[in-house]
Amino acid sequence: MFCRTSPGSTSPARRQNKEKEIKETKITINCVTFPVSTSAPEQQLLKPSEWSYCDYFWADKRDPQGASVSGFEVLLQKQLKGKQMQKEMAEFIRERIKIEEEYAKNLSKLSMFPMAAQEEGTLGEAWAQLKKSLADEADVHLKFSSKLQSEVEKPLLTFRGDNFKKDMKKYDHHIADLRKQLVSRYAAVEKARKALADRQKDLEVKTQQLEIKLSNKTEEDIKKARRKSTQAGDDLMRCVDLYNQGQSKWFEEMVTTSLELERLEVERVETIQQLLRQYTTLRHETDMFNQSTMEPVDQLLQSVDPAKDRELWVKEHKTGDLRPVDMDI
Amino acid sequence: MFCRTSPGSTSPARRQNKEKEIKETKITINCVTFPVSTSAPEQQLLKPSEWSYCDYFWADKRDPQGASVSGFEVLLQKQLKGKQMQKEMAEFIRERIKIEEEYAKNLSKLSMFPMAAQEEGTLGEAWAQLKKSLADEADVHLKFSSKLQSEVEKPLLTFRGDNFKKDMKKYDHHIADLRKQLVSRYAAVEKARKALADRQKDLEVKTQQLEIKLSNKTEEDIKKARRKSTQAGDDLMRCVDLYNQGQSKWFEEMVTTSLELERLEVERVETIQQLLRQYTTLRHETDMFNQSTMEPVDQLLQSVDPAKDRELWVKEHKTGDLRPVDMDI
Repeated sequence: MFCRTSPGSTSPARRQNKEKEIKETKITINCVTFPVSTSAPEQQLLKPSEWSYCDYFWADKRDPQGASVSGFEVLLQKQLKGKQMQKEMAEFIRERIKIEEEYAKNLSKLSMFPMAAQEEGTLGEAWAQLKKSLADEADVHLKFSSKLQSEVEKPLLTFRGDNFKKDMKKYDHHIADLRKQLVSRYAAVEKARKALADRQKDLEVKTQQLEIKLSNKTEEDIKKARRKSTQAGDDLMRCVDLYNQGQSKWFEEMVTTSLELERLEVERVETIQQLLRQYTTLRHETDMFNQSTMEPVDQLLQSVDPAKDRELWVKEHKTGDLRPVDMDI
Repeated sequence: MFCRTSPGSTSPARRQNKEKEIKETKITINCVTFPVSTSAPEQQLLKPSEWSYCDYFWADKRDPQGASVSGFEVLLQKQLKGKQMQKEMAEFIRERIKIEEEYAKNLSKLSMFPMAAQEEGTLGEAWAQLKKSLADEADVHLKFSSKLQSEVEKPLLTFRGDNFKKDMKKYDHHIADLRKQLVSRYAAVEKARKALADRQKDLEVKTQQLEIKLSNKTEEDIKKARRKSTQAGDDLMRCVDLYNQGQSKWFEEMVTTSLELERLEVERVETIQQLLRQYTTLRHETDMFNQSTMEPVDQLLQSVDPAKDRELWVKEHKTGDLRPVDMDI
């Protein structure tokens, strides 16, 4: 729908000429009015170099099914998807937790198996500590899984509270309502425009008829037609005013709300970055604690002494130190 | 059984006196002859301060069931038990290997789960690397389990070859045979001793009978009896000689073989110490390699940039940067 030239011009010929001279500078798509891109000085971005949401989501687009989707809807879906991403990341961490708990359980069980429990002395001690170290490793992994739960998984699940979805719905409805209002105000403009055109045509016909003395229309009829035409013009102006107010309101709310969504997205990315760093910190810690379970084992292995073990064993198991001698006759 | 005084004494009374004066200095137990512990200067240990096998396993002992067990048998059992210990340690390592393989398998599977695969930009890259790091961890643990198998489990199972049990059997039979020989030679000594006693008693009786002119025994008979007595004395000497040779042989083999078992035990303890140190080395390595899987993740998390991600996303998903303008009338 193109906009019309101002009401009140008289000659059709002259009007046609004017239409040829005045290029179309604006276009209304889905009831939103844009400058035609080739006309006028270019608009400056509201937030240059920031790739801000408030600069890039004014038009509607078509989804794969052909339905119209507002730019704001695209922004909103991005936020809802972000919440889904958190949830999936938390699930991933949950799966890691389960794997760690299984590993810990297996190590713990094995540490209690009686293999070579009868080994004695310094070697026996070192072996016993080696077996125990598996229980220590199990503890390290249990601690890891416990911290994963409290310091990564839980925050991932909860840092956007339950209110998040409600807030998104609120924004959604608010912006959509402003668009709906724009639609009805645009319809009013179109209606008023048509009414004006009808009134103008009527006036023109009546004026022509007067000039060629076609009918018995009096000056009175023409005045009435002219009055109605003027009134229709006033109606149109009022409708256009209301429309422009509605569009301005929607514009303001778009800027405010899209910037809020932008802020929320920055917050989401930074929070996730922080939580994933916590994950890597916990992994580093875990590997270090795990290394330290080897220290007592290394120490005892260092102390393994075959001579000492022989002494201990011989003292316990010797049968007699008197050596045999020749029998006398 | 006590040893007898030398053959050839004449008066029973005198003999009894000699028996009272000569204390028992030796005792034969299970056909092995020992000094009585209170007699004679104390024996010096063959290897003082070493608690050597060759010094402490001369006597037999009784097992809980009351059967007689040689000192050598105790040493041999120790070596066979040592082989059992190795086997059990290897089983323990095998169980650890299974646990590591399970852990690696679980991490590997999880790394391929599609959670949050739709996250994009710098955050998406960091997340993807975090997921991949689980596959890297899995590789670290698989490498660990592989080295556990080749550098710890396998050597534990094989460092005493199949020949070990055969060798132990050979030693067992060899020493046991020498003891059996001692038993039969001791029996011969006892037999010869008894024969000598009989010959001596016969001579005594015949001599007495001659003195009191009891019988018609001639000098000839007494000479014969005396000859038999001397011969029995020679037999006894020969039997005692053979016995002593047999005991010396057994003694030598005991010293040699028990020292070999002692050496084998030192080797066993040192080898196991070395293999268990290899275990702790592998564990240290593993924890270090595991830590390094976090490096690329840390780097990418460092690079997470909400502004950059916004730019990437907006460039891809923007709907239009022309802002709406007022409608003209």
